[in-house]
Amino acid sequence: MAHVCDPTLVFRQLFEKVSSTYTYVLADANTREAIIIDPVIETVDRDIKVINDLNLKLLYAVNTHVHADHVTGSGQIKQKLPGVKSVIFDMNAKADIYIKEGDSLQFGSKKIEFLSTPGHTNGCVSIVCHTAKSVFTGDALLIRGCGRTDFQQGNSALLYDSVHSKIFTLPDDYVVFPAHDYTGQTNSSVGEEKKHNPRLSKAKEEFIKIMANLNLPYPAQIDRALPANLVCGIQN
Amino acid sequence: MAHVCDPTLVFRQLFEKVSSTYTYVLADANTREAIIIDPVIETVDRDIKVINDLNLKLLYAVNTHVHADHVTGSGQIKQKLPGVKSVIFDMNAKADIYIKEGDSLQFGSKKIEFLSTPGHTNGCVSIVCHTAKSVFTGDALLIRGCGRTDFQQGNSALLYDSVHSKIFTLPDDYVVFPAHDYTGQTNSSVGEEKKHNPRLSKAKEEFIKIMANLNLPYPAQIDRALPANLVCGIQN
Repeated sequence: MAHVCDPTLVFRQLFEKVSSTYTYVLADANTREAIIIDPVIETVDRDIKVINDLNLKLLYAVNTHVHADHVTGSGQIKQKLPGVKSVIFDMNAKADIYIKEGDSLQFGSKKIEFLSTPGHTNGCVSIVCHTAKSVFTGDALLIRGCGRTDFQQGNSALLYDSVHSKIFTLPDDYVVFPAHDYTGQTNSSVGEEKKHNPRLSKAKEEFIKIMANLNLPYPAQIDRALPANLVCGIQN
Repeated sequence: MAHVCDPTLVFRQLFEKVSSTYTYVLADANTREAIIIDPVIETVDRDIKVINDLNLKLLYAVNTHVHADHVTGSGQIKQKLPGVKSVIFDMNAKADIYIKEGDSLQFGSKKIEFLSTPGHTNGCVSIVCHTAKSVFTGDALLIRGCGRTDFQQGNSALLYDSVHSKIFTLPDDYVVFPAHDYTGQTNSSVGEEKKHNPRLSKAKEEFIKIMANLNLPYPAQIDRALPANLVCGIQN
């Protein structure tokens, strides 16, 4: 259980404090072709500076889902780095590339693969990078938690099945990189979450009860975020 | 330029939002013996939960220096996990073990080595883990920045020499893990900082001028943090 253990992969984890969002940059260390996962509009300039400092060529801006808690940076990145293509699974959102279960994206000699993991939203995907032994779980699986299921087509039974059939069947030592963490933790592993996740380690019926009784407040940025994210963060 | 690439090392980076401090946990994946670097008093319970979830046996709580911006968690960790030894370089601070330049600490088959890197304070050390190709730079070197030098025996000429002679002579692909980041960046590399650090990539005279003209505010937590940290975070 080390970390991203592929010496020919450039890897960077970035954090946006207000929405506690993690953004990830992955690149082929030789060709310098790169992808960014879940950029946030407020930190686009920081992310582009990292990409430029590392001498990377960004190909794709990928969103794991239509976020309700922050505005995606994909649209602004496309404006500032022409040629970058936005990628999403959700057919209701605007993007250059719509991916589906089992699709993959190539950057240099590296590859990410998409697993459909609905439940938080219908369009949620998890992204696997096998050479890095890592899975980017979006809001499907968080460190010792999971995304809420009480709006945006949320369905806790579906989320449970997604996590158990798609993420928890990956090897135990795969690193889990979520879209958010609110406690200052930066990563976990599949084995750890199978054992210690206080919700998803439970039986399905108990998980559904837990999720039904969370009584969460209305998301702070949802009224701003959802309409914007359906059009890639850029509203005309 | 991957990340911590030692499959037999357990590695965890943790963040404390108020003081923007990074805490690190490293362990031998086989023996489970562990160290923690720069714990914060507010997040001790989180850190102990991570240590317990990962089934680790904590041997040492190491501080890179006497922090002025947050209270160390070392003392509380020692109270909650009896047997843990606190470690520091600064002879003015209370600790179980005082280390000096070139000393190392063993945990299982793993080892960290200490480099004296004064300038932010006289007692600042950087911690190198060669098998992980990583250096924990405390406040000596931050991502695209460095610790201030205007109090606590701060000396910008000395800091410049420390970074250039001790940290910048490590291999370019060594990962830089600082004690703080205020921009949401989680790590950098020696090669990147040599090239892109806007202060330390400059000539020494220019660096000294930059540091003399920062006009920083008085640190928010200094009056609470310094007296507490000199006695390991526990005041009787």
